[in-house]
Amino acid sequence: METDFGNSVGMVQTQTIRLCENNNPLRLVCGKSLAPIDVAYETYGKLDAGGNNAILICHALSGDAHAAGYNSANDRKPGWWDIMIGPGKGIDTNKYFVICSNFLGGCRGTTGPLSINPATGKPYGTDFPMITIADMVHVQKMLMDKLGIKRLLAVIGGSMGGMQVLQWAIEYPDFVVSAIVIASTAHLSAQSIAFDAVGRNAILADPDFQNGQYTKEKNPAQGLAMARMIGHITYLSEESMRQKFGRQLRSANDYQYDFNSEFSVETYLDYQGQAFVERFDANSYLYITKAMDYFDLVRDHGSLEKAFQNVKSRFLITSFTSDWLFTPQQAEEMVDALLENNKDVSYCNIYSPYGHDAFLLEPEIIGRLISGFLSNTMNTITGCMTSPRDFAPVNSFKIIDRAKRARLDYELIESLIEPNSRVLDVGCGDGQLLHHLIFDKHITAMGIEVDQNRVIECVNKGINIVHRDIDRGLEKLVDNSFDYAILSQTLQTVKDPQKVFAEMLRVGIRVIVSFPNFAHWLCRWKLFFDGIAPRTRELPFKWYNSPNIHFLSLKDFEEFCDEIGARIENRIPLRRGRVKPVRILPNIFAEEAIYVTTRK
Amino acid sequence: METDFGNSVGMVQTQTIRLCENNNPLRLVCGKSLAPIDVAYETYGKLDAGGNNAILICHALSGDAHAAGYNSANDRKPGWWDIMIGPGKGIDTNKYFVICSNFLGGCRGTTGPLSINPATGKPYGTDFPMITIADMVHVQKMLMDKLGIKRLLAVIGGSMGGMQVLQWAIEYPDFVVSAIVIASTAHLSAQSIAFDAVGRNAILADPDFQNGQYTKEKNPAQGLAMARMIGHITYLSEESMRQKFGRQLRSANDYQYDFNSEFSVETYLDYQGQAFVERFDANSYLYITKAMDYFDLVRDHGSLEKAFQNVKSRFLITSFTSDWLFTPQQAEEMVDALLENNKDVSYCNIYSPYGHDAFLLEPEIIGRLISGFLSNTMNTITGCMTSPRDFAPVNSFKIIDRAKRARLDYELIESLIEPNSRVLDVGCGDGQLLHHLIFDKHITAMGIEVDQNRVIECVNKGINIVHRDIDRGLEKLVDNSFDYAILSQTLQTVKDPQKVFAEMLRVGIRVIVSFPNFAHWLCRWKLFFDGIAPRTRELPFKWYNSPNIHFLSLKDFEEFCDEIGARIENRIPLRRGRVKPVRILPNIFAEEAIYVTTRK
Repeated sequence: METDFGNSVGMVQTQTIRLCENNNPLRLVCGKSLAPIDVAYETYGKLDAGGNNAILICHALSGDAHAAGYNSANDRKPGWWDIMIGPGKGIDTNKYFVICSNFLGGCRGTTGPLSINPATGKPYGTDFPMITIADMVHVQKMLMDKLGIKRLLAVIGGSMGGMQVLQWAIEYPDFVVSAIVIASTAHLSAQSIAFDAVGRNAILADPDFQNGQYTKEKNPAQGLAMARMIGHITYLSEESMRQKFGRQLRSANDYQYDFNSEFSVETYLDYQGQAFVERFDANSYLYITKAMDYFDLVRDHGSLEKAFQNVKSRFLITSFTSDWLFTPQQAEEMVDALLENNKDVSYCNIYSPYGHDAFLLEPEIIGRLISGFLSNTMNTITGCMTSPRDFAPVNSFKIIDRAKRARLDYELIESLIEPNSRVLDVGCGDGQLLHHLIFDKHITAMGIEVDQNRVIECVNKGINIVHRDIDRGLEKLVDNSFDYAILSQTLQTVKDPQKVFAEMLRVGIRVIVSFPNFAHWLCRWKLFFDGIAPRTRELPFKWYNSPNIHFLSLKDFEEFCDEIGARIENRIPLRRGRVKPVRILPNIFAEEAIYVTTRK
Repeated sequence: METDFGNSVGMVQTQTIRLCENNNPLRLVCGKSLAPIDVAYETYGKLDAGGNNAILICHALSGDAHAAGYNSANDRKPGWWDIMIGPGKGIDTNKYFVICSNFLGGCRGTTGPLSINPATGKPYGTDFPMITIADMVHVQKMLMDKLGIKRLLAVIGGSMGGMQVLQWAIEYPDFVVSAIVIASTAHLSAQSIAFDAVGRNAILADPDFQNGQYTKEKNPAQGLAMARMIGHITYLSEESMRQKFGRQLRSANDYQYDFNSEFSVETYLDYQGQAFVERFDANSYLYITKAMDYFDLVRDHGSLEKAFQNVKSRFLITSFTSDWLFTPQQAEEMVDALLENNKDVSYCNIYSPYGHDAFLLEPEIIGRLISGFLSNTMNTITGCMTSPRDFAPVNSFKIIDRAKRARLDYELIESLIEPNSRVLDVGCGDGQLLHHLIFDKHITAMGIEVDQNRVIECVNKGINIVHRDIDRGLEKLVDNSFDYAILSQTLQTVKDPQKVFAEMLRVGIRVIVSFPNFAHWLCRWKLFFDGIAPRTRELPFKWYNSPNIHFLSLKDFEEFCDEIGARIENRIPLRRGRVKPVRILPNIFAEEAIYVTTRK
């Protein structure tokens, strides 16, 4: 039988390479030394002449070096991330040279508890020294050196793989051009440690564990299976479990009234436990989960802010809305710490019902994010830039058709901004304005946007974008970290304009605000003579379906600035379609206005 | 050493009573028969002459009959719910006669796997027949009969105890005056079944389990401890675990680099596991968790709506915001099914960071809810009513001072309502209007309110109140289930007025709406001549801090009614402080208006 390789990288062989000989052991974080060290790895694609296109993939708990393609013509399944790595895929092997290695302590080719302890001639078992994420990364670095890789375009990893990415970016700032962290954290929560601990207990309590000196024939299979079952509960969301199994029974219609597995969810877990036992080593499981529990950037550096102080990579951080093992809150904590350090970071909290497993189940969205981020990172190295003219404006959003409404706005705002400045666009939409500014004025850009599709658009344009509700605030942004903070046609839609505007004044040296003028003569007329809530070209909504939840005039805004301690530097009242400001009675004749303000 | 009984019920003895002799076995749901059956129970307080004040407490997985007071002068701790049951407490033993019994299958005095199997003369072990929640309730009913209880003022239970309460209300509708269900569900989720299954696996896999025929000396302690550890993770919220333990180490400052428990959360779980083993039987744990897994009102009745078709109890359902084992969604599912059946139900989703454990950790709020609900239930039996004059108006809410603003509103709305009608007040605040209507016009009342404190106020006034965001909708309410649906001073604050109003027209035969008039002459004047967002007595907010997010005039509302298919039956434009309607140019001179509308 021949496998159809489809659009995969085809047939690949796992290589093994010796990195440490006995006379040159690796000093581990725990204080012990380890040698020899062999590493299993695979590569896909070709390293380019400049050595600019190398990407390292860090796998998660149960993964291995075999990330893509097929190891034999008889393989039923390709590598664990084949959906993402291959020609034309999210990590495009036509463009990039991709490396994936089994980590230290693993049981899939790299030195771990299953390896022979040179001191005894038998497998290490629990005599294997305790390893950490940092140790894993040190070994990966040795592998890179051995392969002649001078720098990595990106280090990419999900879950525990993401921890390795973080360690890479912090420990080798000059080696890592970009870091892609998917559904991961800077330190496990107490809850995750608790789950890990119970899983380890199950293995340690298994009578076949025998202090880790078990044989292949008689090993703590029940304990390992149970640990895996607990793990699997945490990988799925409550919602996806409900959709997948609900309260369905395995086969019978009636309850069996015994203690056998009878709900589908029970049989699923049984199966996952059994399948895992066949391919994984219980001792490895102990070591790896302990390495995860130990990983703690706050402990290592004093605070997360300090941990990221010296990183030089661009970061792409993603989480999944329903992931309760590595939560969006944990991702945001990292984003905030990077923002506090004024680092390049993009963040997307991907909507998915699949929980932590979404890492493998949302290839389309993750693929779009990664491919866009990678090609823009490549551009920063090669000096190429994509022109804003290459992007069609996105007019398909339902919430408010900002793109159309704010065109005039954008042109005027662009004219107000000095070249080479740092610009924050709050509620930046699909990043049109920032993209133009990057291209035309070489600004350093950052956006904040709540809509996922627009966030992905921004990433594809190479803009640093944080996926966040504006009302959630800008609190982690540093004072004066931008020359301009822009709020275009958004002030009237946020819950707390006072808070948002005050924060913008704090982080931006200048704040540029635009909004529709509620005191335009047509509004006045409609309320005064018709006695109805005004509807105009700029305020086209009915009272009950408007996205605008606050209504203000030029005069209101100016009073507001006064109260809040903002000085108005420039005021541009506008009529629709005209770039020339309204000079006469602007609060009556302007349909919208742009203000440039600063702190008093 | 003598214990200070404090404000507890003092010294109590657990009684044991035989309910089934061998010649008269209980037929179980699984088809098998069981005899003899002994039940352990305690009682507190005194049954009144009319037999109206009996309350049954149903305990959860690891509870027992000893709910309050002390069994001996040397007890370190009182009964498991002493914080709630006692003189002057939430369940006041000066007023009520309280019974709590260990459920069937338990290991604390009632017949269970530890009991002697008459067929063998040895403990049942896993020869014990499979039991269900319904079986437990049948035994409780036999106990009630034996004790001469004719009806129960309330059946109260949390978690698995709540399942018993539901079963009681459905199976014995005439026996149960009210049902209080705390942090429970009509059926476990797939996720909860999964956790239970892994816990049982740990026991079944323990070599000391020996098919359930273990001895007291050599029992599956490790398996049971592990099951309990898993359970404990699910009882705490991620947040409470973070607050309680975080990543704190047990004793050392440095990692130990071994597999012993070193994080505080690990030691906590170890301790919980060990403590449980000392007081609980592993076989009981298997049977009880299986009974929970099997409990499914949807399976039993075809749908939850059908399950509640014939209940006659008043329901108080509560959940905790951070409970992820028995979620607020599961509670709302029950509330919705009761609403679909037009039953008396109150619901409060109590804010708590403590997860499922909040059941034992939020006595103050639960106590206020239960005591208010119980005394109002007592009033419905005895025909007493609390006067609205006994309640001080609650003026201390910050969001909007509705109480003050809407006094006039209330008086006028009250005058519009026919006696003995069914009234829904959407956004009912502290229930002032409904309370007056109940007292003065004997209406059947229901409220919907988003603020927790106001919800508790309503429960204390005897109003059926559902804790819910109005924008979440009225979807489960039956068409025409109310003669009047009231929306007082709220239309302009909801996200989607169109949806809310349409739903109100569906569930109410008449809809009474009041709102501030945005086209009052002062508003017109301010916008027209001053060019600012109007601020008036009725609209006193600035443009940026108003709770009002929509602005409408009388004319706007009338157009809106036309569009949505509502007929205006009555219009009462009002000036502040005057009950007489504005007759001349109301859209100019009225500060607010009340409309009575119906479907066209």
